[in-house]
Amino acid sequence: MTDDQRAADEVWMDRAIARGGRGHPSPNPHVGAVVIGTDGALVAEGHHDRAGEPHAEVAALRVAGDKAQGGTLYVTLEPCNHVARTPKCTDAILASGIARVVIGCRDPNPTVPGAGVEALRAAGIEVLLGVRETAARRLIAPFTKFITTGIPYVSLKLALSLDGRIATRTGSSQWVTGSEARARVHVLRAAHDAVGVGIGTALADDPLLTVRAAPGRSPARVVFDTRLRLPLHSQLVRTARQVALWVICGPDAPEAHEDALVTSGAHVLRAPISPEGRVDASAALKLLASGGVVSILVEGGAELAGSMLAGRLADELHAFLAPILLGPRGRPGAVDWAGPTTPSEAPRVADPQWEVCGQDAHVFGPLVYPEHPDR
Amino acid sequence: MTDDQRAADEVWMDRAIARGGRGHPSPNPHVGAVVIGTDGALVAEGHHDRAGEPHAEVAALRVAGDKAQGGTLYVTLEPCNHVARTPKCTDAILASGIARVVIGCRDPNPTVPGAGVEALRAAGIEVLLGVRETAARRLIAPFTKFITTGIPYVSLKLALSLDGRIATRTGSSQWVTGSEARARVHVLRAAHDAVGVGIGTALADDPLLTVRAAPGRSPARVVFDTRLRLPLHSQLVRTARQVALWVICGPDAPEAHEDALVTSGAHVLRAPISPEGRVDASAALKLLASGGVVSILVEGGAELAGSMLAGRLADELHAFLAPILLGPRGRPGAVDWAGPTTPSEAPRVADPQWEVCGQDAHVFGPLVYPEHPDR
Repeated sequence: MTDDQRAADEVWMDRAIARGGRGHPSPNPHVGAVVIGTDGALVAEGHHDRAGEPHAEVAALRVAGDKAQGGTLYVTLEPCNHVARTPKCTDAILASGIARVVIGCRDPNPTVPGAGVEALRAAGIEVLLGVRETAARRLIAPFTKFITTGIPYVSLKLALSLDGRIATRTGSSQWVTGSEARARVHVLRAAHDAVGVGIGTALADDPLLTVRAAPGRSPARVVFDTRLRLPLHSQLVRTARQVALWVICGPDAPEAHEDALVTSGAHVLRAPISPEGRVDASAALKLLASGGVVSILVEGGAELAGSMLAGRLADELHAFLAPILLGPRGRPGAVDWAGPTTPSEAPRVADPQWEVCGQDAHVFGPLVYPEHPDR
Repeated sequence: MTDDQRAADEVWMDRAIARGGRGHPSPNPHVGAVVIGTDGALVAEGHHDRAGEPHAEVAALRVAGDKAQGGTLYVTLEPCNHVARTPKCTDAILASGIARVVIGCRDPNPTVPGAGVEALRAAGIEVLLGVRETAARRLIAPFTKFITTGIPYVSLKLALSLDGRIATRTGSSQWVTGSEARARVHVLRAAHDAVGVGIGTALADDPLLTVRAAPGRSPARVVFDTRLRLPLHSQLVRTARQVALWVICGPDAPEAHEDALVTSGAHVLRAPISPEGRVDASAALKLLASGGVVSILVEGGAELAGSMLAGRLADELHAFLAPILLGPRGRPGAVDWAGPTTPSEAPRVADPQWEVCGQDAHVFGPLVYPEHPDR
């Protein structure tokens, strides 16, 4: 393969990846596709918009029609070779007359290993696998974690002062970050299946946790509420019939309040308790996965964020940093956990992206947990 | 004045301001100057490089020579009209044949109010005052604070994890930020007259506090050491004859150790004690001002940073943020003070500049302390 061909493959795959970020296909993965004609020009593109609708490559090939003949298909994820809610994508590719298929990454689903690539090759189509593989994998990171572990992908959001605080000494927390940062949080909410908070935050802020300052649908709201203290008059409960509300409590939480919450439209799930006396975060996440939650944005507070880090359950971090200093001596920080022994063993945002967001900054990326000798 | 003239004035003043940032003229202010010929082209530029050397406008006019005749002089600060270590700048301007003088800001020195502008106008020169005034004032902010209050300009440096920590639960703090951020701290050190730490940091880290990872001279090192605990074998004391070391202690600190420190080459100053039992930060800064310190970079630790914020003594913040989470439950944060009542009353970086610095971010700018009703 020439350098020119390699460069062109990367450009078109980047375009397919960008396109794949659209829509809300959960519980399916984000997938994007681009069709290039025999003259090297763009013919069509498509993405998997939502579950039950056409897969990305099918959507793109439909737009391309006859112009796909002899062309190249770029698709971020290995095309499926099995019939589910939609027909086989490999059949659609064969029927289209596409001569070459460039694929970002393999299907991580352990029940369909590599079948798409092999089926295409067996039919005589040239297949190139692994172009922009890291970015292609990142596009489906939530799906991959969900399908391989049975645990939702967890994005942790923190909104902090420069000195790592979420509130003043009086508990005042509105507002640490500015309106631009808050709007970006709403965009993040819309990209997840669920948004979660601890009961402390629910009681202190009485939040709605819906998407208002950005386009998109509101995710399910989840409250981690060991002793089932969420009030019936809270904004979350009062809107439970409009936007799904899940409350996860411990085995000993009062049944009468559970009944009242259910009557109000909430779903109540019971999970085991951790050694720290809180709902076990890992078990709670598995319950959510059983309910079809592939991704959850955890918005705090400090105890829930700490549980997610201590259990190495947080996959991605979004920190919004306001250029102020709040300081309160003797009060817990934004993330309440013991932390690592040395800075080099600390959870770290890999390949951090820093973006200015009004007066604030937004840093985000996948979290990695370095190994250390005594683990 | 036409819009074109106004735009040209701003462009040339920006150049003079950038030029003025060079050198280390303390205890004099940073000043830059640009000379433009009658044809509108750049003829010369200059800056005040260090005390005793020519002022910026004189340096630029010397380079310009006859080409200054009929031209325009841009100077960031009102030219002096008095003889000090160098001759009057106003005389040099008159002698040069310059026809027009554009000035960034007035001389803030209360003992020479406005004399330069008036002297030039009386001699028939066209004077325009206040072009890019905010930026011109920022260039001399340390000088202005020093000359008007008798207190050094304080830059506060923090190197933090995203959750606002400077160390793990074991006290491990090397390294939170990366090598790029640490190099930038050395650039900051070189731009200040002094660099200061609390005794806790001096004992924990045994730092040198010199400029090694950047060009420039090392500032004087200052340790805030109430009970005079700085060990004779510390790196700071062992290098006291190479780079100045000032130790500020309370009135009851042991005299024998003071004698030993002085014998080692350190300077020991005694300051009153604050209600919290530490060296009073404001009094300590005044002592440093008496010693000719116009600007100090305070590098921590948490108690010293907290004193600077609580006393509203910090004028500028430089926070370096590493994309890691350290969390340690129950340990003090990076800045140990009570903090404000609400986020809107918090010390805030005005017009914050966010810059990526390796994997880390560097946010900096002047600190403002919002007023609130009960103050």
